[in-house]
Amino acid sequence: MTLAVRYTAARTLDTAPTGTPVPGPGEVELAPAYVGICGTDLHIFHGDMDARVHAPAVIGHEMSGRVVRVGAEVEGWAPGDAVTVMPLRWDNTCPACRAGHQHICQHLDFIGIDSPGAMQQRWTVPATTLIRLPDTLPLDRAALVEPTAVAVHDVGRAQVTDGDKVVVVGGGPVGILIALVARNAGADVRVVELSPHRRAVAEELGLTTWDPAAVDVPELVGEWTGDAGADVAFEVSGAAGGVDTAVDVLGVRGRLCLVAIHPRPREINLHRFFWRELTLIGARLYDRTDFEKAVTLVADGTIPAERLISKVVPLTEAPAAFEALEAGGDVMKILVDCTEHTNGATA
Amino acid sequence: MTLAVRYTAARTLDTAPTGTPVPGPGEVELAPAYVGICGTDLHIFHGDMDARVHAPAVIGHEMSGRVVRVGAEVEGWAPGDAVTVMPLRWDNTCPACRAGHQHICQHLDFIGIDSPGAMQQRWTVPATTLIRLPDTLPLDRAALVEPTAVAVHDVGRAQVTDGDKVVVVGGGPVGILIALVARNAGADVRVVELSPHRRAVAEELGLTTWDPAAVDVPELVGEWTGDAGADVAFEVSGAAGGVDTAVDVLGVRGRLCLVAIHPRPREINLHRFFWRELTLIGARLYDRTDFEKAVTLVADGTIPAERLISKVVPLTEAPAAFEALEAGGDVMKILVDCTEHTNGATA
Repeated sequence: MTLAVRYTAARTLDTAPTGTPVPGPGEVELAPAYVGICGTDLHIFHGDMDARVHAPAVIGHEMSGRVVRVGAEVEGWAPGDAVTVMPLRWDNTCPACRAGHQHICQHLDFIGIDSPGAMQQRWTVPATTLIRLPDTLPLDRAALVEPTAVAVHDVGRAQVTDGDKVVVVGGGPVGILIALVARNAGADVRVVELSPHRRAVAEELGLTTWDPAAVDVPELVGEWTGDAGADVAFEVSGAAGGVDTAVDVLGVRGRLCLVAIHPRPREINLHRFFWRELTLIGARLYDRTDFEKAVTLVADGTIPAERLISKVVPLTEAPAAFEALEAGGDVMKILVDCTEHTNGATA
Repeated sequence: MTLAVRYTAARTLDTAPTGTPVPGPGEVELAPAYVGICGTDLHIFHGDMDARVHAPAVIGHEMSGRVVRVGAEVEGWAPGDAVTVMPLRWDNTCPACRAGHQHICQHLDFIGIDSPGAMQQRWTVPATTLIRLPDTLPLDRAALVEPTAVAVHDVGRAQVTDGDKVVVVGGGPVGILIALVARNAGADVRVVELSPHRRAVAEELGLTTWDPAAVDVPELVGEWTGDAGADVAFEVSGAAGGVDTAVDVLGVRGRLCLVAIHPRPREINLHRFFWRELTLIGARLYDRTDFEKAVTLVADGTIPAERLISKVVPLTEAPAAFEALEAGGDVMKILVDCTEHTNGATA
């Protein structure tokens, strides 16, 4: 038996033994090493996603680990291989898939939401979801590949290019990753973030930050850009005020990339979209190219993943970590350590 | 002395004699022939644009006419030339102009709003605003070139291509023109419009229409597109419900081109922008290329402009025409005839 973190009801997680499914044809059994706690996991914890998550459910989708066993018809993978998982299964038949947008398949199975996730000591997934990790990349850092792939996708959707002036509204883990990926693409970046701790982390990474409670962000953008406005804004805050800021900072033909999830409709200043010919760009998840680029960026240190990891907790303490995250505080990314070394060999 | 239609106060227009300014260097004096009444003119009439329009103000910007006199330093134009006017003056120095987007100059002078317009018997404009009309094109039809340029610009902003499935929400003059331009680009088009009269005009032009009060538009789009959703939607209604419809009909990676002006913020279903990776595209006015293409489309009959002209009224009856337009009714485009033939030679 191995242990798993399970969502059992709104605001309730437990850890419980689970069986280890034998990998079927085309499947691979993994031993997850580190699993990041994501904003989506917090939404699940809050009970906001009960329509998709059927308790008891093993959650988690930002992971690193090693192959333990391979099923029939699996080629190219062997026990011990270091991997991360692109947690998407698509149907290949819907209009989105046929148009080549499998990552937004109209019947997408997001593994870790719609089907069992990574926060356990053994995890069986389709071999097609595996992404190879370089042996030189420590597995704790590698758990940041998935959110980095989100950032790569978002920066690509916004078509950030060399010399662009970019405002990132919201300096949590994804916002910081977007800022770093955009900077790597040649952009000049400002991060807007309320939390002093998160601003400090960003500043330590060489990013310039603004506290929207203390300064007039659109006015500063005007000074910074010679009254032109920013080329690109990323809305990563999820707040109504964040949307307004992202709209207000943009210059003529500016692009607003919508990263945060806004479950309910938001009021948008459409007049400014007309007046400046702005573009709002929805962005969701990633494709394999984004994931492979993310591996490179984490492995080569462009993304200093270790600086974004606030804390590593053993699997058995994951429920408490969720409660602490919900309480707020000075935190960026928390990883759950699923290795048997930490949690005891229970098999 | 010549006559002009003047906005004097909210809901008040008059006609009054005006002086004829001698064209200065680089300027041309025109004799406007036909001037269309546009939605923006109605906004001015309502008093909604008093911040920009300083009464008494001559309005109007959808026009055709002939050159009467040319000022010094004007080359290539002679009395009698048939023209329309691209009613924009930009400063060439602001960040938008420097980036090549003069039509959204940050200090744009929209002639007919910010400075005197075309609804008069003589009109002096910069020679740089002139667009040549073919001699074979009747001047009444040519008054539709300006709104057609809007449609050309919008279809370009939305990158409509051959085979696209396009939904136009709002079947007034601009909506119909967008539908015709999109069809000419190879798109399969549906027009959503409440007014039976406007639907009938559209159907007569070979367009398929839907009455949103009678059918479930997103459901019909689902059937029409094999559950894929539309590639492009144009929001031309200006209504909150129109925005919702435009969002709801779009498929994965669909583009929503925002044409109507929404003076106040609107609630937008941002979750769907995320979920389907939609794009919202602001569109404003046009550039010279759009205008020249519009001349071609009106002249070659792709835009059957005569079918969109509901009524032609003499200049002296323009104030009454505004009141009639405001009252609604079965109408598409009303033209004001500024020629001396109709209104009497008063010079």
